[in-house]
Amino acid sequence: MVVADDFFLSGLNKPGNTSNAVGSWVTPVNVNQLAGLNTLGISAVRIDYAPYGLNPPHTHPRATEILVVLEGTLYVGFVTSNPANPAMKNKLFTKYLNPGDVFVFPEGLIHFQFNVGKTNAVAFAGLSSQNPGVITIANAVFGSDPPINPAVLTKAFQVEKNVIDYLQAQFWTNIG
Amino acid sequence: MVVADDFFLSGLNKPGNTSNAVGSWVTPVNVNQLAGLNTLGISAVRIDYAPYGLNPPHTHPRATEILVVLEGTLYVGFVTSNPANPAMKNKLFTKYLNPGDVFVFPEGLIHFQFNVGKTNAVAFAGLSSQNPGVITIANAVFGSDPPINPAVLTKAFQVEKNVIDYLQAQFWTNIG
Amino acid sequence: MVVADDFFLSGLNKPGNTSNAVGSWVTPVNVNQLAGLNTLGISAVRIDYAPYGLNPPHTHPRATEILVVLEGTLYVGFVTSNPANPAMKNKLFTKYLNPGDVFVFPEGLIHFQFNVGKTNAVAFAGLSSQNPGVITIANAVFGSDPPINPAVLTKAFQVEKNVIDYLQAQFWTNIG
Amino acid sequence: MVVADDFFLSGLNKPGNTSNAVGSWVTPVNVNQLAGLNTLGISAVRIDYAPYGLNPPHTHPRATEILVVLEGTLYVGFVTSNPANPAMKNKLFTKYLNPGDVFVFPEGLIHFQFNVGKTNAVAFAGLSSQNPGVITIANAVFGSDPPINPAVLTKAFQVEKNVIDYLQAQFWTNIG
Amino acid sequence: MVVADDFFLSGLNKPGNTSNAVGSWVTPVNVNQLAGLNTLGISAVRIDYAPYGLNPPHTHPRATEILVVLEGTLYVGFVTSNPANPAMKNKLFTKYLNPGDVFVFPEGLIHFQFNVGKTNAVAFAGLSSQNPGVITIANAVFGSDPPINPAVLTKAFQVEKNVIDYLQAQFWTNIG
Amino acid sequence: MVVADDFFLSGLNKPGNTSNAVGSWVTPVNVNQLAGLNTLGISAVRIDYAPYGLNPPHTHPRATEILVVLEGTLYVGFVTSNPANPAMKNKLFTKYLNPGDVFVFPEGLIHFQFNVGKTNAVAFAGLSSQNPGVITIANAVFGSDPPINPAVLTKAFQVEKNVIDYLQAQFWTNIG
Repeated sequence: MVVADDFFLSGLNKPGNTSNAVGSWVTPVNVNQLAGLNTLGISAVRIDYAPYGLNPPHTHPRATEILVVLEGTLYVGFVTSNPANPAMKNKLFTKYLNPGDVFVFPEGLIHFQFNVGKTNAVAFAGLSSQNPGVITIANAVFGSDPPINPAVLTKAFQVEKNVIDYLQAQFWTNIG
Repeated sequence: MVVADDFFLSGLNKPGNTSNAVGSWVTPVNVNQLAGLNTLGISAVRIDYAPYGLNPPHTHPRATEILVVLEGTLYVGFVTSNPANPAMKNKLFTKYLNPGDVFVFPEGLIHFQFNVGKTNAVAFAGLSSQNPGVITIANAVFGSDPPINPAVLTKAFQVEKNVIDYLQAQFWTNIG
Repeated sequence: MVVADDFFLSGLNKPGNTSNAVGSWVTPVNVNQLAGLNTLGISAVRIDYAPYGLNPPHTHPRATEILVVLEGTLYVGFVTSNPANPAMKNKLFTKYLNPGDVFVFPEGLIHFQFNVGKTNAVAFAGLSSQNPGVITIANAVFGSDPPINPAVLTKAFQVEKNVIDYLQAQFWTNIG
Repeated sequence: MVVADDFFLSGLNKPGNTSNAVGSWVTPVNVNQLAGLNTLGISAVRIDYAPYGLNPPHTHPRATEILVVLEGTLYVGFVTSNPANPAMKNKLFTKYLNPGDVFVFPEGLIHFQFNVGKTNAVAFAGLSSQNPGVITIANAVFGSDPPINPAVLTKAFQVEKNVIDYLQAQFWTNIG
Repeated sequence: MVVADDFFLSGLNKPGNTSNAVGSWVTPVNVNQLAGLNTLGISAVRIDYAPYGLNPPHTHPRATEILVVLEGTLYVGFVTSNPANPAMKNKLFTKYLNPGDVFVFPEGLIHFQFNVGKTNAVAFAGLSSQNPGVITIANAVFGSDPPINPAVLTKAFQVEKNVIDYLQAQFWTNIG
Repeated sequence: MVVADDFFLSGLNKPGNTSNAVGSWVTPVNVNQLAGLNTLGISAVRIDYAPYGLNPPHTHPRATEILVVLEGTLYVGFVTSNPANPAMKNKLFTKYLNPGDVFVFPEGLIHFQFNVGKTNAVAFAGLSSQNPGVITIANAVFGSDPPINPAVLTKAFQVEKNVIDYLQAQFWTNIG
């Protein structure tokens, strides 16, 4: 039987633990945490940033994100998909955001938020899917299990194998 | 030409003016304010509540809402659609929300938030459409232009005409 | 195993029993009555109206409705969602319909049909969902189980508590 | 500016002219006749059948149809898509319908209605698209402009060319 | 547990057996053969054509098809849905395709491919559904189980019953 | 006026020019090249691979891809989105593909194909959108215009700035 608690979750007032390599943490509220979101096409997150903390470049394969800054100053950006003209580069759109500023990251595009201030920063975001998914680029490309064949990555990034070895040797942690 | 500002809006740090009949204000961030949301299936709002302020019963004809409380204590609820059994009543689901609490209002259902504390309250919400729409029940039913024929409303609400006259004579203002 | 009867239902030739408070009855043909509609995005209803019978203001949270009048004269209308300008009112669109007239009630908007003639009226309607849902405004707002807190409703409708008490004291029945 | 008439159409009380080769007529109410249906995902038709009139085998490429019989007795049916097992045949599901009976024709499947009574028959139907489209099989296959190459049709239908010539020589008219 | 093989299928390098009445074969790769396609909205086919082989007129009730010719010369076409003006005919669009040519068959429209060369032909196609469905017109109309009542077909195709008897007496086989 | 050529494109028989840094080329057939695909939800590509050529890690923000190998041997893979458990790694699914093998890359996930043979390889693929988009990870992350701030990338990839400088200094070209 359906009850009010199926549509309820608490805890978004608690800062996430940003004591990790990138200095940020994402607290998700999607259908995995809140069953009442099923089929309803929306979810939310709280994002905490330590000073100079980074929500590293990532995509949501099934959602657009609308982010509101509550505290701190964030440098945010997203990169467009490949241009029709192969001689052109992918465009980077960036903005400095302060409390009350809103920014949109369109579905599937690589984006990031970087706390450029000396204090903690906090943001809330809505996502246009009950199950948006997250792909942290560094983790998926250099930290997968098993690792991607270095021959693929040396060619993809046009660098020597030792650079790829170095990148794959880092300790990768997801932040939510 | 597309620029970063097409995906940017400022001002959600500013409290809405709650000096109105219901003591609340909704500051919208949808495709009408932020053109970059077009086709992206999401929008957001900031809601301010004076002490005992009410975001009165309303629906979003094209969106589910996920609400996060930032400050204050809200009594929130939604009413289910008509039960299959006509002898049953529409069910009301309610919850008291404190900062960090999240609640979901499924698409198209009547819902409200009421500030039951002595201080201002603030919430942010995401909505699953770039153009969710809002229908404040009292305004749409008793304050439309032109007014709905009182014969319709006396029968619908099963009351004397003077009650409907009284309801239609109130001053109706939308709050965002 | 699938058979022809999975796509069949009988009985829409029988008038609904309009001996109730509002003088109308809705006979639904959606996925709850006709399993073959599952995933197919459509359903239908027959609506019967006694003289001066009313299909009271309601919404379908998940469907647009296209209505065809078979017998009688109906006064029908819907109210638009809140205008962008808070100083403006929600607009009411109305029309008198005679046999053979068609009217559209867009998804999620509050609408009604009122039999303004001295004879029974009958209409058929298609709805753009196999499970459109119905929310009768009066029942959902004033007749829910449990009732909505009168403090919410007095503020929402800007009336004295005794008016709300009176409205909540009526006997509410759904009509299909 | 939007007005009530944008959501209104009259004339579905008038029988269609069934004086044609198949003895039926379809009066459509879709976005081409009723602009207010745009984006709303639904449309309707009135279908008239002379005695022994036929709404010949056809498909709607973008819609499911829910049909209600108002007058007369119809023999209706649809054929399923090709079975996974090539040794099996496409299944035909049929039903005799009388006034008040409802039948569903799933999206894209070939279906027909045949008036098996000695009197006129009338049906209304809803379709799950504002622009459902109609493909009358006989007209599209044997009456297109220009005609399909007879070599294609002799092989497709496994008959002599004179049979195809004969079929292509008939006078084809659409019925709405 | 999900594994790579859930997203894998082999065998599309093998020509289909075209020793049948129409001289063609369709090898499908949809959700029935490849479970990993579930919910992902796409599928594929390989089509083999003997000299003068035909993929006979058919529709996909739930998908658009984009076809690429690998070998041979195909005469392809599709027929539009009924024109708004009943006095007009359904339009046939055709094209001769050689290796490397691409053609689009919009969702739900009747289409065919005919090998007009003296050698085998091969094509690959993508379809916009994990479960597109196929309706071979000849099989569905003249070869269903049970057969469609000849009275329906004589009127639909405006021919004598013996022509319909002849058409229904052919041996119908699906080709994939 | 619509004509057959609106649904036609030639040239997919011509190998793409793989004389570039990664040794592969993608020839697209989407709504930008073939206007008739508009609203139809599908597109296609031809992919050519020189010996040891790589279609480098990339995503399609709006489409699933189904790939068929025509010639050569490809090592292909995709990486899942972040696991719910932050202590787990993103999973890599890989497969060696030979002619006739089919593989699915789900919407929005990072994937690649690597020609592990000594000869050219060719594949065709269908994509579940008329405008799928492509984001080549290396180009979007290290070759955007303007470049992403190195402080973001050093933290994201957990490496020294000189490694990021080196990665950003490569010459990036898109391959289609």
